[in-house]
Amino acid sequence: MIVELISVGTEILMGNIVNTNSAYLSEKCAQLGLALYNQVTVGDNPDRLFNAVKTALKRADTVILTGGLGPTKDDLTKEITAKALNKGLVRSRKWEKKITDYFSQRDIENFSKNNLKQADVIEGAEILDNPNGTAPGEIASNEEGKTVILLPGPPGEMIPMFEAHVFPYLKKQTSQVFVSKMVKLCGIGESSAETQILDLIESQTNPTIAPYAKTCEVHFRITASGRTEEEGEAIAAPMVEELYRRFGNHIYTTNEEETLEAHIISLLKEKNKTVTTAESVTGGAIAAMLVNVPGASQVFKEGYITYSNEAKIKNLDVKPETIENYGVVSAETAKEMALGAVKRSGADVSIAVTGIAGPDGGTKEKPAGLVYIGCCIGEKVKVEKFQFIGNRQKVRESAAASALSLIRSSLLSE
Amino acid sequence: MIVELISVGTEILMGNIVNTNSAYLSEKCAQLGLALYNQVTVGDNPDRLFNAVKTALKRADTVILTGGLGPTKDDLTKEITAKALNKGLVRSRKWEKKITDYFSQRDIENFSKNNLKQADVIEGAEILDNPNGTAPGEIASNEEGKTVILLPGPPGEMIPMFEAHVFPYLKKQTSQVFVSKMVKLCGIGESSAETQILDLIESQTNPTIAPYAKTCEVHFRITASGRTEEEGEAIAAPMVEELYRRFGNHIYTTNEEETLEAHIISLLKEKNKTVTTAESVTGGAIAAMLVNVPGASQVFKEGYITYSNEAKIKNLDVKPETIENYGVVSAETAKEMALGAVKRSGADVSIAVTGIAGPDGGTKEKPAGLVYIGCCIGEKVKVEKFQFIGNRQKVRESAAASALSLIRSSLLSE
Repeated sequence: MIVELISVGTEILMGNIVNTNSAYLSEKCAQLGLALYNQVTVGDNPDRLFNAVKTALKRADTVILTGGLGPTKDDLTKEITAKALNKGLVRSRKWEKKITDYFSQRDIENFSKNNLKQADVIEGAEILDNPNGTAPGEIASNEEGKTVILLPGPPGEMIPMFEAHVFPYLKKQTSQVFVSKMVKLCGIGESSAETQILDLIESQTNPTIAPYAKTCEVHFRITASGRTEEEGEAIAAPMVEELYRRFGNHIYTTNEEETLEAHIISLLKEKNKTVTTAESVTGGAIAAMLVNVPGASQVFKEGYITYSNEAKIKNLDVKPETIENYGVVSAETAKEMALGAVKRSGADVSIAVTGIAGPDGGTKEKPAGLVYIGCCIGEKVKVEKFQFIGNRQKVRESAAASALSLIRSSLLSE
Repeated sequence: MIVELISVGTEILMGNIVNTNSAYLSEKCAQLGLALYNQVTVGDNPDRLFNAVKTALKRADTVILTGGLGPTKDDLTKEITAKALNKGLVRSRKWEKKITDYFSQRDIENFSKNNLKQADVIEGAEILDNPNGTAPGEIASNEEGKTVILLPGPPGEMIPMFEAHVFPYLKKQTSQVFVSKMVKLCGIGESSAETQILDLIESQTNPTIAPYAKTCEVHFRITASGRTEEEGEAIAAPMVEELYRRFGNHIYTTNEEETLEAHIISLLKEKNKTVTTAESVTGGAIAAMLVNVPGASQVFKEGYITYSNEAKIKNLDVKPETIENYGVVSAETAKEMALGAVKRSGADVSIAVTGIAGPDGGTKEKPAGLVYIGCCIGEKVKVEKFQFIGNRQKVRESAAASALSLIRSSLLSE
C-alpha cells in the first residue's frame, strides 16, 4: 500500500515550526511496512491544497493530512479535502455538544461561533476522537476506494489520535504482517554504535535494520515481514539477540513505548529506591523529565535547583572551599552536590549536574559544554565528565539525557 | 519570486531524521520575502526525483534541493537535476584536486573512485565552496531562465554554504524589500485573540497578518513589502500600533527572537528583582525554561521541586493543616508554597505551582488538569486557578507557560 503525507500550514512554509509530524508519521509507516514515496507541505491556500490532495490521491492509496483543522477561517483542510473527494460536510451533533461542553466547563469567555466549525465533518467519514483538543480526526474515502486521513497539527493531539485509531486502522489494511522491534541504547555514541553494525546494515534483507539518533541515545529499528505475527517474530528475534551480543548492557529496552526516564522510574521502583535531583546547568530539566512519567511520585519526592554558588552551599552543603579550590564546574563540586542532595532529601539515590551551558562563561581550560555529572547511591558517588557541543539548549539537553544514563548505569553496577 | 524546496533522502522518508533543513530554508525565504508555496520530500529514486524537479520547475522560479550529493551510487540529485535542466555533467578539475587533497590529508583509507564523482558538476553551473565537506554546491539554470540550487544534506555543511553564497545570491534576485514583525501575546486564548483581529485578516493586503499558536501564547506575524527597508517599516508600523491598541498589555514583545522566558528575565533585571520557583506538578520545567535564557543567573539563584506533601512542608513551610483542610491542590497550598519559597530563598519574586497532571489522581471535584499557580512579590500573593486539557505532558507544558505569564502580569501590576 502506498501512503503519501501532506502537512498543511503556512507556519511550516514560513519556517516558524519544524515539521516533526512528518518524521513521526514516516517512522510509523516504515514500521507498518507501508511504502511512502512523497511528503508534501503546502500552506493554507485553497488551490494549492486542492492540487496537493488531488495529486496525492493519484499516486497513493492512502493520503494522511496533518494540520489546518483549527477553528479559524484559515483552517481549510477539511473543506478542501471534502471537495477533492467529491463529498460534502455535515455537522456532527455529537462533536457540537463536545465543543459546547468543553467551553462551558472551561473557558466560556473565549468561546466563539468559529469553534463550532470544528464539528463539521466529511459525509460518511469515520470520526476519530480527540481527547486533547476540539478538532476531531477523520477517515474518509472516495468512490475509487482511495482513503484520506485527517489529523490535527499539534503533535500533542496528533500522536495520541494516531496511536489510538490510525495505527490499528493502517495495520488492518496490509496483507503482510510486519513485526517491528525497537532496540534502544544509551551511554554509547551514535557513530560508534553504527560502526559496530555496518555489516548488519549492508547485508540486511529481512529483517531490515535502521539506526535512529536521539539526544544521547541510539535506537535501532528492526523490521521483519512474514505471513503471520509468529513468523515475523521468529525472523526478527535473531537480529535482536545479535544486538544484545554486541551491545549488552547499553541496551535499556526493546519496548517501543518505553522512554529512558520511564525505564529509570521502573528500575527505581523495582529496587525500591527513591531518587532526588541536584541541578545547576540543567536547571530542573532532569526532574521535569522524571515527573513526566506517570507514577513518578512513588520514587521522586523532591529536587533541588541550585543555580548559584550560594544555593549549592546553602541547600546542598557544598563546601565554599571546594568551589574556591576546584571551581564550581568540577568533579569535586558535582560529588558534594550529589552527597548533599542525598543527605538533605533522605533519598536513596541522587543525580547532580554542574556545567557551563554557554555561550558565555567558558574559558580555555573549562570551555562551554563542559559538564560534570555525579550520581550518589548511599555513600558511593560516581562522577563523570562530559564535553558536549552545540548551543545552550543542546548542551542542557545532552546533560539531562546523560544524567539519566548515569543513573541507570549506577543502579545496574551497584 | 517563487521558490520551491525539495529534500532528497530515504532517511527522511523513513523518519530516521527530522527535516530541519526545510524549516531553516523556509525561514530564510520568508525573511527574504520570497514566495514559498510547496515543500517536497522524495527518496533517492530516479523517476520520482525527476518528476519532483520537473514539477517544481513548472511552478517555481527557483528550486532549492538539499541532499543526495554524496559519493555513493544512491546519491542521484546532481545527475537527475542535470537531466531535468537538459544539461550534461562536467568534471571540475579544481574539485577533483580538492577531493584528492582532502583524502590524502585525512582518511586515505576510505578514499575510493566514488569520491571523485563529487567533482562532477552541471555544465555552466556556478560552483559553491564547501569548507565542511567534499560535496560542492551548485547554482544552475535552464534555457527558460529557471534556476536550481543544489545544497548538501548535512545541516553542518548546508547552513554555512547557504549563508555564504545562497542568501546573498537570492537577495540580489528580489527587487522588493520585505519587513517582518512578530507580535507576541500571552495570557489570552488563541481563538479569542483571532476573533479580535478577524477584520484585519479579512482586509489584509500590504502588510499581511498571520496568527501562530504556541503553548498558551499567540503570535502574529506582520509582513510588509516596500521598495526600501524604510518604506517596509513605515507600512508595517500602523498594523503593529493597531495590535497594541487592541491587545495592550497582552503583547509582551515585537522582537522575533525574544521568548516569553527571555522577556521575563529582562523584566526582572529591569526591576532589579530575583525570582525563585516552587514546583510540584511542573517538576522543574519552569526553572528549566528560565535558565535556558543566557544570563538567567543574574535573577535566578535557586528553585524548589516539591513533589510530595512532605517536601512542601519541609522545604517550603506549607502547614500540614492547610494540605489537610484544603487539599494539596488548592489555592491555599499554592499561596503557602509561594510565600515559603520567597522566605526560604530570599528572592523577591516566587512562582508556585500545584496541580494534577493526570492521567490518574483526579476526582470529580478536582479533575486531572486542575492547576493552581501562585505568584508572590514581597508579601503579596496572587493565585490563579486553571483547568487545562490534554495528556500529562500537555497539562504540564500549559501550566509552565501560564506560570510565566502570571509572573509577567504580577510584575506589571505590582
